[in-house]
Amino acid sequence: MKPIQFAIEKKIPGALGRAGVLTTPHGTVMTPAFVSVGTKATVKGMTPEMLRGMGGQITLCNTYHLYLQPGDELIRKAGGLHAFMGWDGPMMTDSGGFQVFSLGAAYGKGISKVLHPADPSQQIPERSSADDGVPRLATIGNDGVSFRSHIDGSLHYITPEKSMEIQHNLGADIIFAFDECTSPTEERRYQEEALYRTHAWAKRSLDYHHNKEDNASRQALFGIVQGGRDEELRRMSAKEIAEMRTMEGAEFDGFGIGGSFEKDDLHSAVRWVNEELPEEKPRHLLGIGEPEDLFMGVENGVDLFDCVAPTRNARSTGTMYTKEGRMRIMNTKYREDFNPVESDCGCYTCKNFTRAYLAHLFHAKEMLGSILASVHNLYFLTNLVSTMREKIIEGTFPEFKKEFFESYTK
Amino acid sequence: MKPIQFAIEKKIPGALGRAGVLTTPHGTVMTPAFVSVGTKATVKGMTPEMLRGMGGQITLCNTYHLYLQPGDELIRKAGGLHAFMGWDGPMMTDSGGFQVFSLGAAYGKGISKVLHPADPSQQIPERSSADDGVPRLATIGNDGVSFRSHIDGSLHYITPEKSMEIQHNLGADIIFAFDECTSPTEERRYQEEALYRTHAWAKRSLDYHHNKEDNASRQALFGIVQGGRDEELRRMSAKEIAEMRTMEGAEFDGFGIGGSFEKDDLHSAVRWVNEELPEEKPRHLLGIGEPEDLFMGVENGVDLFDCVAPTRNARSTGTMYTKEGRMRIMNTKYREDFNPVESDCGCYTCKNFTRAYLAHLFHAKEMLGSILASVHNLYFLTNLVSTMREKIIEGTFPEFKKEFFESYTK
Repeated sequence: MKPIQFAIEKKIPGALGRAGVLTTPHGTVMTPAFVSVGTKATVKGMTPEMLRGMGGQITLCNTYHLYLQPGDELIRKAGGLHAFMGWDGPMMTDSGGFQVFSLGAAYGKGISKVLHPADPSQQIPERSSADDGVPRLATIGNDGVSFRSHIDGSLHYITPEKSMEIQHNLGADIIFAFDECTSPTEERRYQEEALYRTHAWAKRSLDYHHNKEDNASRQALFGIVQGGRDEELRRMSAKEIAEMRTMEGAEFDGFGIGGSFEKDDLHSAVRWVNEELPEEKPRHLLGIGEPEDLFMGVENGVDLFDCVAPTRNARSTGTMYTKEGRMRIMNTKYREDFNPVESDCGCYTCKNFTRAYLAHLFHAKEMLGSILASVHNLYFLTNLVSTMREKIIEGTFPEFKKEFFESYTK
Repeated sequence: MKPIQFAIEKKIPGALGRAGVLTTPHGTVMTPAFVSVGTKATVKGMTPEMLRGMGGQITLCNTYHLYLQPGDELIRKAGGLHAFMGWDGPMMTDSGGFQVFSLGAAYGKGISKVLHPADPSQQIPERSSADDGVPRLATIGNDGVSFRSHIDGSLHYITPEKSMEIQHNLGADIIFAFDECTSPTEERRYQEEALYRTHAWAKRSLDYHHNKEDNASRQALFGIVQGGRDEELRRMSAKEIAEMRTMEGAEFDGFGIGGSFEKDDLHSAVRWVNEELPEEKPRHLLGIGEPEDLFMGVENGVDLFDCVAPTRNARSTGTMYTKEGRMRIMNTKYREDFNPVESDCGCYTCKNFTRAYLAHLFHAKEMLGSILASVHNLYFLTNLVSTMREKIIEGTFPEFKKEFFESYTK
């Protein structure tokens, strides 16, 4: 018995898009679906009850963050992520690959593709690889990745097997193979190299996962397709990941589409990949979730999306999604505006509070501002994708998309 | 018809304490009751739904803060505080007196009892009084108080009439007369002087309020008893405020017990005051709410308490109340403690999360930590006072108090 089942209910005629039902050990997800991101075992500022209340079906936590704090062993002892964070619905963890690269670079120390030996924060880790064509001091090796903790600077080493082990400890319903995420600005030679590494790591992830029978029966493993902006590499990666098998014939339960994209590439990269992937398995577009991307993704056969933008935009600048585009609630004009953010929105925030109140909360730096704005944004995207699903089933997705973009300005 | 009704259901034999029912235009409060504090029109980190969920009956907002931000006129236009903040239950606003003094002093500029003319931030406000025995440059005059905004340094002037006007705009069910809160360290001469001023301001508040018939029929006005640690002054103040009438015979609907106390004074000050106040009207002990103070207050005839401690302690240090005393969740020993904060607690936090999870949230600086700790603390105090009420009605208050302090350590 496989840990998840996926059934397609209806397709968008002449396109790759589809509406489906994904069944996991912790419940069912009606796809396409927006996955809320609970980086450190909490969707920032939201209780699980609020997540449910705004229609949240499924949550994704970050392996990298949880490995460092509070540690995957601790979460295993707590009974896994579901028990630890009080979310009893479907849950995913990512592979940690993306965070190792992006956070490493973001924090200016630890991992980077070309290290500067003069910088003491970039000392070569003991087990870095040497003969992979990357400069001598790189911390990405064919075996795995060395990086420094952004919390305490301690050195860590993650291999595909280690990523699996961590994700087994975390115990999400859907986990991801360890991968290398590349920048779209990398040249083709590096993209190719990184892709081979990603495929090798995918195979090792798959093998390790299926060597742990208990986990393989409870946790679905998704393989990640990479390949940057290159059509040949993207199609090749999709085929290779789709056809990957263990010696016993076990395969990936679904697929992630990874990469750090430039906006213009996104559409074509997703289409190339989904033209190659087997139709009957679910596909997750990793880390993407602006409204325009959601339409593009759904149309091109994506079933699941996750993105921190709705909660990050809410918290950091009081920016909220509306059907007319983004609203910056701290703009002076909202100070005495006694309408809800959106008058026809069904979220807790719009049903109970005005723009003026939200503006006040943000001006007064009150926590409740971030909470209410996050509730609205998560509801907006969750509801947008679930409306797309309805429209696919009704057969009116193209009309809905057209209507949406008549009012929505990016 | 008076805006509120108060009925005593049962008394503690041989003591001043009682269980009652307070009816307001926005619903009923079973007293004694703990009032959550929503300083800037939000109980920090809590939605109104969460407040209801944890048994919250009534909320108090701060006139001083709201006057400065977003302004009482704006809240009036929003339809009053209830509509503005989405709380449809009973609500109070304080007079602003306490904040004007304490925040002024706390921010090191604006109001203080002895000003330094050389400090440009302490320029004499135009309308300060001169002949009240306080040094020439004082910003407390017999007519009112001048102070600087802690937000933008702008100068403001509040009189009893202005405080009433602001509180009319805010539109809470219960409002307070403008008063001067003194430090317990002030000498008797100053206490007396401040008390006369408070009584004069109480009379002006009462008169102004009853000149606005619409407001007087919808909003109850409580007079504030002051008098520091001095028995004579406290009893005198209680009598005078209790007997105060407008020319038409209108009186206060209830009473606040004000003051900045030293812990040892609190018990006697409350008893002196409540021995003098008429039994049939409700009494609110302003700004006090540690568990030991709640028992003392209830025993001595207090019906309502408000305090920021539960949410402030939760947010700032992750300190939570338990029946054994305070728990500091960031203590290392809780990192792997998979019990709830209190195993027999009925709050959302204890029913769904462990100490280890809360510890993680605080170590990771996640907003949800503050939220969940605030939920627990507010529930703890709200529930503690409502249990006291049950025990008064059962006739077992002294036994409950004894039992509580057998396990609770301050």
